[in-house]
Amino acid sequence: MTDSQLKEHIRIVPDYPVKGIMFFDVTTLFKDAECFEEVVKRITDAFKGKGITKVAGIESRGFITGAAVAARLGAGFVPIRKPGKLPARVVSEKYTKEYGTDSIEIHDDALGPDDVVLIHDDILATGGTASAAVRLVKGFHPKAVYCNFIINITDCPRTSPIPEDVETVSILDMAEN
Amino acid sequence: MTDSQLKEHIRIVPDYPVKGIMFFDVTTLFKDAECFEEVVKRITDAFKGKGITKVAGIESRGFITGAAVAARLGAGFVPIRKPGKLPARVVSEKYTKEYGTDSIEIHDDALGPDDVVLIHDDILATGGTASAAVRLVKGFHPKAVYCNFIINITDCPRTSPIPEDVETVSILDMAEN
Repeated sequence: MTDSQLKEHIRIVPDYPVKGIMFFDVTTLFKDAECFEEVVKRITDAFKGKGITKVAGIESRGFITGAAVAARLGAGFVPIRKPGKLPARVVSEKYTKEYGTDSIEIHDDALGPDDVVLIHDDILATGGTASAAVRLVKGFHPKAVYCNFIINITDCPRTSPIPEDVETVSILDMAEN
Repeated sequence: MTDSQLKEHIRIVPDYPVKGIMFFDVTTLFKDAECFEEVVKRITDAFKGKGITKVAGIESRGFITGAAVAARLGAGFVPIRKPGKLPARVVSEKYTKEYGTDSIEIHDDALGPDDVVLIHDDILATGGTASAAVRLVKGFHPKAVYCNFIINITDCPRTSPIPEDVETVSILDMAEN
């Protein structure tokens, strides 16, 4: 399957969640069994052989492909969530995003020093959420940290770039404008 | 892997999200690669041969195992979300749950009459959310609808039972008290 075929299945929603934002809706990609398989396969192929022990998916679209990839890699799955959503003790990180500020949390027993962690989200825009996730994950001093996104928005100012020591793979490059 | 081994990996959080609720935290199950695989395998084994075309996962823990099962069954994945979280046109259903009232939504182009749909969530308690999900899914007049849960809370009053024509499989029976 080509990049174009995948991109055709991504719905563009103008002015969502706020005016001026061009939202890439991956639900139309995930509902198509062949596209969903292609995305999971591409991510899995990029990271097999890295010894990934945990996929950390960012709430909540990052749970979807993240969990499918975890199962295929034989890894565990760990959720990174918005504040107040995790039931046990957490560690938190604040971040700035394209449309506002927020923070994210992870259970304080989610990872350990023997883990090799793949952070996953559907979209890389400013890098704010992803960089906060990297800080959260690095706090556990794992053996290695990787990042993966389905869509890299190429024309979004990368105001919070992912640290250069974190190998990052995106599946599709797409421009908002 | 036995039921007991799986249950040992489920964290019990008292008084979450509100006082009097005994919360079964599946994040400790999912972070363990062997347990996560066992759960995905048990669900997949229960539904392979049914011709499932779409797994509809209920926000947001239902996204995790739901998506992993979808990928393994070769099906698409469709999210059922809380109000205002889906970017395009939706249909909604109200429901009553153990601790409050709420509604859930699905994109109005998420399913079609050729689909065989597996609705998935982590926990079956009163049946409120699941029954609302069944109503949402049946609105698309799919060929068949199934339900699956990881944990069936056996001593929770089933105030909104899932309709009897919907074959329902739970992986683990657990009691709150």
